Amino acid sequence: MARWEPGAAGRLREAAMELYAERGYDSTTVADIADRAGVTARTFFRHFADKREVLFAGSEELLNHMVAALTAAPASATPMEAVTAAVVSAGDIFDASRRDFSRRRYAVIAATPELQERELIKMASMTAAFTEALRNRGAAPDVAALAAETGIAVFRVSFERWVAGPADVPIADVIRSTLATLAGLTA
Amino acid sequence: MARWEPGAAGRLREAAMELYAERGYDSTTVADIADRAGVTARTFFRHFADKREVLFAGSEELLNHMVAALTAAPASATPMEAVTAAVVSAGDIFDASRRDFSRRRYAVIAATPELQERELIKMASMTAAFTEALRNRGAAPDVAALAAETGIAVFRVSFERWVAGPADVPIADVIRSTLATLAGLTA
Repeated sequence: MARWEPGAAGRLREAAMELYAERGYDSTTVADIADRAGVTARTFFRHFADKREVLFAGSEELLNHMVAALTAAPASATPMEAVTAAVVSAGDIFDASRRDFSRRRYAVIAATPELQERELIKMASMTAAFTEALRNRGAAPDVAALAAETGIAVFRVSFERWVAGPADVPIADVIRSTLATLAGLTA
Repeated sequence: MARWEPGAAGRLREAAMELYAERGYDSTTVADIADRAGVTARTFFRHFADKREVLFAGSEELLNHMVAALTAAPASATPMEAVTAAVVSAGDIFDASRRDFSRRRYAVIAATPELQERELIKMASMTAAFTEALRNRGAAPDVAALAAETGIAVFRVSFERWVAGPADVPIADVIRSTLATLAGLTA
C-alpha cells in the first residue's frame, strides 16, 4: 500500500480534521477547509467530491484490499480463516502513519449522526462483499453470511480498540486479540 | 407478548404490505394505504406516524424485550450466554403469526435503500443497547462490545434464514442453530 501522498490532499485532510474537531462537521464548509489548507475550493474539488468524502475516500480502497486478501486465502482455508486474512490485511492500510487521522476521524463520526449512518452503510457494503467472496470460494450461504458478519464485527470492535489504545500497537495485533476473545466467548 | 391487535392497525399493515409489494414503497402513499384498508388517513395517523413506521413500529418493542431478557439472565451467565438469552427471546415476538409479515417486510426493505439504512440504524441501536446492558452486568468494555456485535450478527443472519426457510421452524431454533454454527466457525 502506498503511503498517503503529501501535498494538497494531505493538507486538506489535516485542515478538515482540525475544523471538524474545532467547530463540528456540520458547521464546517468546503471553503473553510480550503482556506485552512491554503488552497482554493477548486483544488479541494480536484481531490474530494465534498466535505464528507474527506472522511470516506479511503473506504473503497480498504474494501478492495480486504476482499482481495479474502480471495487470495488458500483454497484449504476455512471461511473464518479467509475472513481473518481479510480483516488482518486492514493492517496494511491502517499503519502507524494513519492512526492519528483514524482516531480523529472516529471522533468526528461518533459526534455526527449523518456520518454514523454513512459509516453503517459502508460496513454493510463490506459485509455484503465478504459474503459474496466467501460464496465464490464455495461456502454455503448461511455460513458465508455468518462468517462475513462476524468478521466485520471483529473489525469494528478492533478498530475502536486500536484508535483508543496505545499508539505503538499495530491494528493487526488488536484484530488477532479480538479474534481470540471471540473464540473464547463462543466456545 | 400480546398478539397483534385485529382491527384497523392490522388492516393497515396488511394493506401497506400489499401495496409496497405491488407498486413499491416509494410509489405508495398514506392515502393509498388508508384506501386499501378501508379507513381514513386520519385513522392511519392514529396508528402510525408515517408510511415508514408501518414497517418499524415493532422495533422498539423488540429492542426492549431483548434487553430485558439480557438483563434478566442469571448473574452467573457469561456475556455470550446473556446475549444468547436476549436474541433467543426474539422468538417470543416473532412467533408463527408474525412470520408472513416479517417475510414480506424483509423483501420490501431489501428493495428500498432508504429502508435498508433505517434498518441498519435500528440494528446499531440494538448493538449499543446490548453493549450497555452487558457493561451494567460487569462485562469489560471490549468484551461487551464484541459480544453485542456478535449477538446482533447472529440475530440478523438467523432472521434472514427464518423468513426464507420453512414456515414451521421457530426463529428460536434457527438462532440456536446459528449460534452452534458460529461456535464451529470460531473454534
